[in-house]
Amino acid sequence: MSTDGKNKIREAALRVISEQGIAGATMRVIAKEAGVSTGAIYHYYPAKEDILYDIMDVSLKASTQVAERAKSGEASRLEIARDVYENLIERFKKVQENRLQFYLAHEAILGNEQLQKRFQEKYDEWISRIEDILLAAYEAREGKATRAFAAWLLAAVDGMVLQDLLDVKAADKEMLMQVFDILLTEGIPCFLQLMEKKGIFAD
Amino acid sequence: MSTDGKNKIREAALRVISEQGIAGATMRVIAKEAGVSTGAIYHYYPAKEDILYDIMDVSLKASTQVAERAKSGEASRLEIARDVYENLIERFKKVQENRLQFYLAHEAILGNEQLQKRFQEKYDEWISRIEDILLAAYEAREGKATRAFAAWLLAAVDGMVLQDLLDVKAADKEMLMQVFDILLTEGIPCFLQLMEKKGIFAD
Repeated sequence: MSTDGKNKIREAALRVISEQGIAGATMRVIAKEAGVSTGAIYHYYPAKEDILYDIMDVSLKASTQVAERAKSGEASRLEIARDVYENLIERFKKVQENRLQFYLAHEAILGNEQLQKRFQEKYDEWISRIEDILLAAYEAREGKATRAFAAWLLAAVDGMVLQDLLDVKAADKEMLMQVFDILLTEGIPCFLQLMEKKGIFAD
Repeated sequence: MSTDGKNKIREAALRVISEQGIAGATMRVIAKEAGVSTGAIYHYYPAKEDILYDIMDVSLKASTQVAERAKSGEASRLEIARDVYENLIERFKKVQENRLQFYLAHEAILGNEQLQKRFQEKYDEWISRIEDILLAAYEAREGKATRAFAAWLLAAVDGMVLQDLLDVKAADKEMLMQVFDILLTEGIPCFLQLMEKKGIFAD
């Protein structure tokens, strides 16, 4: 039951982190909390950072499902926009996972090269998922321009998660979501048209 | 010469950080590098974090100048868009300052309440500057909706700075800037019209 074991360890790690912080979450403490032996935890995860990374990875899997749904062609653009909107609401609730993302990003920026490489691969994947959604649900044109636009959309979400973690209350929360909703339903189509008009898809 | 003294200390701190990392940048080491006494450094800055925060603050002052220029009414929308574009190019070059921003944000997220409060005030100020630009150069309507939109624009820039620090190469760099350019020149006006149509300015 490898998946169950991993689930148990990730859930235990999240509990330890929320109580003792990331520094206090050693392999030994996580194993104890999960009720597994130290040998067993190393069987599932070679290092603590592998657990943390996996927690972040699993928590951000929702966008893959939305991308699959968009590619299946079974949902309308508005339904996909609704899915993405709901996804962001859920994302904001995952405070521990979001903190973890910025903790890991911070470690990568400070010089953890292995972690940086993983982030690069992960961003590549996340941007691909958003690109899939743009291509399937918004009928964007495939190419460098759509991919760059996908990267900006991901950046906006990351930046808003950061504002949320810092508890910035500079703007009205409900209004932030209304603006996001307009972006998803009409802003993206409008912007794709502008890109078409500018002819940057030809590049 | 208080400003000169502070400049000297900030520059010294940046040098120390780029060589020894943020952890190695103690008040004593920074004072030595700046060629001032320990007494003098405490006269200018009560604590190390005050220096770091000030470095970030000063490096992100450029948006204030753009906002002032927009408010003066002496520059066209395209000129202001050009200024914002150039600002982002300059921002990407300030790698040490950007790392510092994410280091401080990380500290705030992990529980440094004083730092968190400062970030909240700073975001409030940054969002106000973007709002000023939207009102003056893009003739947006004053209110919660424009402010929320300003917060999203700041989020997009923060998120892109994060991708840059992580050296994510998932999207073509030149194309990222072309997309940003279209956003500034035509994307924002298009989006403001959509907001108007949706009637969210009335809220």
